[in-house]
Amino acid sequence: MLGEAQFRSITATFNCQVQWGDCDPAGIIFYPTYFQWMDAACWSFFASVGYTAKRMRAEHLAMPLLSADCQFLYPAEQGDRCEVRSRIGHFGDKSFSVAHEVLREDGFALARGAEKRVWAKFDNGPGTRLRGVRIPDELKALFRGA
Amino acid sequence: MLGEAQFRSITATFNCQVQWGDCDPAGIIFYPTYFQWMDAACWSFFASVGYTAKRMRAEHLAMPLLSADCQFLYPAEQGDRCEVRSRIGHFGDKSFSVAHEVLREDGFALARGAEKRVWAKFDNGPGTRLRGVRIPDELKALFRGA
Amino acid sequence: MLGEAQFRSITATFNCQVQWGDCDPAGIIFYPTYFQWMDAACWSFFASVGYTAKRMRAEHLAMPLLSADCQFLYPAEQGDRCEVRSRIGHFGDKSFSVAHEVLREDGFALARGAEKRVWAKFDNGPGTRLRGVRIPDELKALFRGA
Amino acid sequence: MLGEAQFRSITATFNCQVQWGDCDPAGIIFYPTYFQWMDAACWSFFASVGYTAKRMRAEHLAMPLLSADCQFLYPAEQGDRCEVRSRIGHFGDKSFSVAHEVLREDGFALARGAEKRVWAKFDNGPGTRLRGVRIPDELKALFRGA
Repeated sequence: MLGEAQFRSITATFNCQVQWGDCDPAGIIFYPTYFQWMDAACWSFFASVGYTAKRMRAEHLAMPLLSADCQFLYPAEQGDRCEVRSRIGHFGDKSFSVAHEVLREDGFALARGAEKRVWAKFDNGPGTRLRGVRIPDELKALFRGA
Repeated sequence: MLGEAQFRSITATFNCQVQWGDCDPAGIIFYPTYFQWMDAACWSFFASVGYTAKRMRAEHLAMPLLSADCQFLYPAEQGDRCEVRSRIGHFGDKSFSVAHEVLREDGFALARGAEKRVWAKFDNGPGTRLRGVRIPDELKALFRGA
Repeated sequence: MLGEAQFRSITATFNCQVQWGDCDPAGIIFYPTYFQWMDAACWSFFASVGYTAKRMRAEHLAMPLLSADCQFLYPAEQGDRCEVRSRIGHFGDKSFSVAHEVLREDGFALARGAEKRVWAKFDNGPGTRLRGVRIPDELKALFRGA
Repeated sequence: MLGEAQFRSITATFNCQVQWGDCDPAGIIFYPTYFQWMDAACWSFFASVGYTAKRMRAEHLAMPLLSADCQFLYPAEQGDRCEVRSRIGHFGDKSFSVAHEVLREDGFALARGAEKRVWAKFDNGPGTRLRGVRIPDELKALFRGA
């Protein structure tokens, strides 16, 4: 797909831990938790290049989702320390994708997923209509790896 | 305490069910779920007297918390159908309390809790500063029981 | 794919409502909520054919995930009443997929997703190792539509 | 209350951060998140003295709740880095309380709460009946401060 070529992205790391309340009666992680982590990892990724939560709020920016998916490779248990490694999959005009990999402390892969998001602006502050806007080239450049 | 006398309140009912993801590895409900239910029950209570989510948004109103507490009387399990019975504990000038009781379908009491909230208005729409405002007498009247 | 042909499935309906705590600072539903609904809808679907949470527990059965995905078509807001319509996508030997569609009360489609799960048994009760088992033909038959 | 005298407890620290999905349409933390943090902080506290999740599972131990409460002092926002400082409030025969204080990175107090829990054992592994057991003096000693 032209325009959706793989982007040579930097990688960010988000640390997390499986908590008692993240697990279900099978004693393993309840799967929506992975999506909560992926969301938090995405915000953390953007914060790492200067787009902090505070700045996103001030500039009326948000990143609503178009789609999300995840493969669950191995069950995580309470206490497992993990990291989510995130990188940009591609940048489109107004949308982008983020690829996430969840690794256990010992490097064992637990899950692999992706989010497709829109780069969007509130018409008039949080709670008002969100509208997709062009992703600035300067923003894309911040994620470009060596 | 003058002004904090027990309010003769109507009672509202909010239906819910314990889901797989609401339970922890002990196979019983993860306790913050009760607070999620109490919050949802409070919004539902206000909706029942005309203060729907839509209206709250339109009028820039919110109900931030001062405190919350809950006693857990008996463990709920996945599949249990429950109802939260809510009533106003008292109305202050700008704050109020809601008493909640969680009953299982068969009438068995599972939990009993309370929330203390402020009646508040956003300075300029969601995300801006919330400021406590006087609770209108007309609003209090909507909750008065026979 | 042989063995993965579309299954002529009955459809189940799971009712839910977008709560205040399900929404994020953009004022719309936080996307992992859709996966929580899909999970609950799947359990409800199985309960509707006789595999209740109680029975699943008694027979040491669970349905761990292989993957999940969702497309978010339109943002839901607090107060929106929704239903998740679920049907079996296909039955494999030990795994199966469930297709979910989330509709708003007025019939408007909000999201469309799928889960791929394993039919599994605990070696020795909850918390012990889960192992995939053959899906009984009798179970498959319960989901067959007209 | 005899037997419930304030216990001279060590203090543990649990680090956390307010995520996008932890916040509600008012743009501030959704209050059940504090209880999720208190629960995780309690498990972390016990892990810090040797009672890790792994050991708790192996010895069929759990800590079901009798009650929980929290005062919300100041609204937390997305991105705020926080710590929960936990200490034992008192040890009873089979029950105990944990006092938690949530501080923002800059030392500002956001919330103050407590949990009352039972020290309990599963009759026959997770999912089976939980029964309160005497808290061993050796366990209490692990939490005693200077």
